[in-house]
Amino acid sequence: MRARDLAKPFATVSLEADVLTAARLMAAEGAPGLIVCGADERPYTVLPGSQVLNFLIPRYVQDQPALARAFSERAWDDLRDRLVSHTVRDLLPRPADIDELPIVDQDATTLEVAAVMARMHSPLVAVVDGHDRVLGAITVSRLLTHLLAS
Amino acid sequence: MRARDLAKPFATVSLEADVLTAARLMAAEGAPGLIVCGADERPYTVLPGSQVLNFLIPRYVQDQPALARAFSERAWDDLRDRLVSHTVRDLLPRPADIDELPIVDQDATTLEVAAVMARMHSPLVAVVDGHDRVLGAITVSRLLTHLLAS
Repeated sequence: MRARDLAKPFATVSLEADVLTAARLMAAEGAPGLIVCGADERPYTVLPGSQVLNFLIPRYVQDQPALARAFSERAWDDLRDRLVSHTVRDLLPRPADIDELPIVDQDATTLEVAAVMARMHSPLVAVVDGHDRVLGAITVSRLLTHLLAS
Repeated sequence: MRARDLAKPFATVSLEADVLTAARLMAAEGAPGLIVCGADERPYTVLPGSQVLNFLIPRYVQDQPALARAFSERAWDDLRDRLVSHTVRDLLPRPADIDELPIVDQDATTLEVAAVMARMHSPLVAVVDGHDRVLGAITVSRLLTHLLAS
């Protein structure tokens, strides 16, 4: 069994999409994150949902979550405005190093996929074809299902 | 809207369960992780699926995933034996600090939940009642769905 056989379609978003589009896609897909692709359609990184929240929620509220109870509806509207005025690229901390991304080749074995997921502490890996185009993704639960059955 | 209204039932596992049981539960639930509870049924931490793989896959294979292609079926059987001979407690790096866990009270507001998720970089938070018993969990996609609709 190779990565291509385990990969399932997974939502991708462009680096230049606004954050609201990315957040809506995560919500609609019920996904914990999205695969971010560059203009060349190659995967750039994986955007975890918590990073959207990290961008949205001011640092002082993260440090003292109980402060969030005092947030007015108006303050929340201001936060939401940030979602449309920034792109996915703005959320990403630094240019990603392709060697250190949860991405595997379509011919990777299941143990190789497991090794990448373990190393990257990622709940999913993107699977790419010979042209670095995204074929889909493998989640940790899908991988475990296969490993335990084999 | 409070945390209790957003929480959905979520798989929990005991600290003393063997790792195979935990891995099977993640696979069956399609979940990226599990809530780990102590003998008193209070949440102890969240176990991400990648941590199971991290335990299972030797460090030298994680460092060089291509080495996994050379793994024989026999070697894989040996790895699987580790799953039944260790408990969830063995997987956890250190006693968890209850202040630094992705856990919220049932009365937490949605923004408070978002703040905890952002701070902990967690794709889910456990929701507990007044006796610290697990009511369920809120995933990042469910939280985003609510935040974007409100």
